[in-house]
Amino acid sequence: MTSPQRTSPQHPRRLRDIQEWHLETDVAIVGFGGAGGCAAISAADAGAEAMIFELASASGGSTALSSAEIYMGGSGGTRVQKACGFEDSTEDMYTYMMAAAGPQADAEKIRNYCERSVEHFDWLVNNLGVPFKDSFHAERAIMCLTDDGLLFTGSEKAWPFREQAKPAPRGHNLYIEGDNGGPLFMKIVTENVEKRERIQVHYETRALTLIVDEDGRVSGLVVRQNQQELNVRARKGGILCAGGFCMNEEMVRRHAPMLTRGTQPIGNPGDTGSGIQMGMAVGGEAVNMHEGFISLPFYPPASMTYGIAINDKGQRFINEDVYHGRLGAYALQQPSERLYMVLTVEQYGEYEKVSYLGAPVAGTGETVAELEEELGLRAGSLENTLRIYNEDCAQGEDSQFHKAAEWLQPLEPPLVALDLTPGRGAFVPFFTLGGLDTLPTGEVVNSAREPIPGLYAAGRTACGIVRRAEGYSSGMSVGDATFSGRLAGEQATKSAD
Amino acid sequence: MTSPQRTSPQHPRRLRDIQEWHLETDVAIVGFGGAGGCAAISAADAGAEAMIFELASASGGSTALSSAEIYMGGSGGTRVQKACGFEDSTEDMYTYMMAAAGPQADAEKIRNYCERSVEHFDWLVNNLGVPFKDSFHAERAIMCLTDDGLLFTGSEKAWPFREQAKPAPRGHNLYIEGDNGGPLFMKIVTENVEKRERIQVHYETRALTLIVDEDGRVSGLVVRQNQQELNVRARKGGILCAGGFCMNEEMVRRHAPMLTRGTQPIGNPGDTGSGIQMGMAVGGEAVNMHEGFISLPFYPPASMTYGIAINDKGQRFINEDVYHGRLGAYALQQPSERLYMVLTVEQYGEYEKVSYLGAPVAGTGETVAELEEELGLRAGSLENTLRIYNEDCAQGEDSQFHKAAEWLQPLEPPLVALDLTPGRGAFVPFFTLGGLDTLPTGEVVNSAREPIPGLYAAGRTACGIVRRAEGYSSGMSVGDATFSGRLAGEQATKSAD
Repeated sequence: MTSPQRTSPQHPRRLRDIQEWHLETDVAIVGFGGAGGCAAISAADAGAEAMIFELASASGGSTALSSAEIYMGGSGGTRVQKACGFEDSTEDMYTYMMAAAGPQADAEKIRNYCERSVEHFDWLVNNLGVPFKDSFHAERAIMCLTDDGLLFTGSEKAWPFREQAKPAPRGHNLYIEGDNGGPLFMKIVTENVEKRERIQVHYETRALTLIVDEDGRVSGLVVRQNQQELNVRARKGGILCAGGFCMNEEMVRRHAPMLTRGTQPIGNPGDTGSGIQMGMAVGGEAVNMHEGFISLPFYPPASMTYGIAINDKGQRFINEDVYHGRLGAYALQQPSERLYMVLTVEQYGEYEKVSYLGAPVAGTGETVAELEEELGLRAGSLENTLRIYNEDCAQGEDSQFHKAAEWLQPLEPPLVALDLTPGRGAFVPFFTLGGLDTLPTGEVVNSAREPIPGLYAAGRTACGIVRRAEGYSSGMSVGDATFSGRLAGEQATKSAD
Repeated sequence: MTSPQRTSPQHPRRLRDIQEWHLETDVAIVGFGGAGGCAAISAADAGAEAMIFELASASGGSTALSSAEIYMGGSGGTRVQKACGFEDSTEDMYTYMMAAAGPQADAEKIRNYCERSVEHFDWLVNNLGVPFKDSFHAERAIMCLTDDGLLFTGSEKAWPFREQAKPAPRGHNLYIEGDNGGPLFMKIVTENVEKRERIQVHYETRALTLIVDEDGRVSGLVVRQNQQELNVRARKGGILCAGGFCMNEEMVRRHAPMLTRGTQPIGNPGDTGSGIQMGMAVGGEAVNMHEGFISLPFYPPASMTYGIAINDKGQRFINEDVYHGRLGAYALQQPSERLYMVLTVEQYGEYEKVSYLGAPVAGTGETVAELEEELGLRAGSLENTLRIYNEDCAQGEDSQFHKAAEWLQPLEPPLVALDLTPGRGAFVPFFTLGGLDTLPTGEVVNSAREPIPGLYAAGRTACGIVRRAEGYSSGMSVGDATFSGRLAGEQATKSAD
């Protein structure tokens, strides 16, 4: 017998050591967030029995904590895109997502996502009953606080993306007022799960480790429920939908040191990396583990976009009309101890009332020289930067960083500077973007990209379509979680018992 | 029986499937570079039989291709440091190496390295017979082309490190003229191996996969020799010293996308990641996989240090007196399509004769405005930068980037600019710095940091003391390889059969 303390993700249980099956199903799913819920629904709809094991006492996962925007488009456009007058080609969506993901892009996965995105919209609407209003939210926003169905949620309209692919808004927001999309979405998913007789849910149940047979095939898993270890047989396989690892400080430090500059992990307490660890322990390869979403959510108010972000040399480093995550990632790559956002008193406007950022005022100046002194910048450094920026604003073209003309306003004193430096008050949210390498079907693969029989992963436990903060758009995570969960559920069902 | 095509690193062989042992030893070592050679020597000296399996037809590995500088110091100083008048404290060395490694530093491993570094020097000298001359090479150099025994090989004297720890030269260069340290070092190691009867070497033998028993203990490995698969029993364990993965393009793209900007992988053809993959397949965790050494080797001539590195906004981004790998890493993090080095015609001097960089001239200017135009920089941008830089030079203090005063010379036209942009002619060498997580003893650990019984790793197959290009000093790799190899050999020998 394996001793009890060895029942950990790192020690898969061998099938021949299993004396008894306490529970049996076709598809065993770890985690009841967006990915796990959609996996169970699609498995059940394809004819399989599914069992979900959720650590918490209710469904939700990180999806319920999010705004649940869902990134969808291509194929001419979703119903909402079309109704709002946006045509969206699959190629434009693909080009944007590939550029966003960078050199580590998974082209096959992104291609599949873009080609089937409208189909996914229809599945969410027709099969689950997710409501989207056919209306467009024009304001630059991090999340949509109205019930509008569509908004720009990334850097589609910003340089360099706007030169690479025709911009289209792809963030689909649920038909509900306020930032309440996540809870509504998971309520709908949960109701869908509950009405399907083929699905059983076990709450307050922790997945401990996988069970593998002699050939390395995943045959089930060991869970703990009411202080008892139960062996769960999964005839067709197991799907790991257990989230990422942003709550595991040591794992973040070892794998994603860049994220240690973040101030607030965004996720649920179950995001400890245990799903990724279980997959690794049976030969799955974890990839892109160093990357994460990390951000300086500097708007709202949208007027912050008129400001410039600078480092402690007084230098700009990005077009400030990009998505906040892109600005955050660039800011944190600056060789700089301090980071500031400089703007006019007028642009500062409603900042204190509506900001999520919470960055304190670092200095103000009736003159540029006064502001330089307050910020500890070398005399003349910000002045240099403003000389060029203001000339460019007058010309209507940001010659160096290519901020769109609509966001160019000369920065004339009196000026305000916010302190964006992590650790000095600004909110710097982060979560992980690395996970188990999977095929577009959700099959977990080893380092030779051969599938591990019987093992699937979806959502943040897998490494999905989103690979970098630099290319993040809101809605990519819930889009990826629901789509990859749904596909993994289907694929597992197709597997032989 | 497992089918032959499944004999790959991803598929460990089970002990009970082994019909016959073709070879038996105490310690089986994969790879005969610096790490593998030192592992075999220390195992043999501790009383074990050791067997080395080397893919190539001769010893060498990447160590033989390197300059074989060895980074050592602390404990008051090595014999060479002391003879050259440098005192070096363990704390200063530790502080420098911790800062160099960044947030992902392995403090325990670095502590052990620093505390035992002088002992390691003595082992190399007394036990192996490695010759070092008691002389100091004062010139700033990437490699020492004289037979001097000691030089500065990192960023010890550069900001911010100089403020954190007292600088000491720690690069120990073998007593031989020219860039011939690597071949000499491996010749000495190989002679040491050959004279030890307890060590057997199998050349032209590829390690295919590990053999594990029912409890996950590594019991041996399968190798291919003369087109035959041989089962090798390793009574005390296996040590993976099979290099990194810089020659595996797909693995680099998936794990270390930053390195895809490099033009030249630095390593031997065996650096395919197979050792890392073998370790992962039995539960070892790979860490720091995204990091690598990547560089713009912009000196010699040392006079290049008087120049400034700029991005395509005409902005400086670093103190140019740092080690070339640090400048390279910072350069590649710049949000910039082009990178330049600007200097005076006089500083350019012997560049064409002695440079390794090979960067083409991007432009010249009798005036700054002319150079801006030739480089496609916005008018006034480089002028801004030079206004501040030249004022600072006149004051003898680089107010923003802290280049040491000895390297400050005003940049007055006529000026030359070199094109440092990867892909436009400059040599951008790279190699990987991620690998299997190990304890300081060389024991490979899983994601819970529990040792995998019978499995050790050293050199680039392990993730060692060096974690980032930003903090690299020449000599850290061969230092780490030889030290970690030596420790792993000792530790494996201590293990029960």
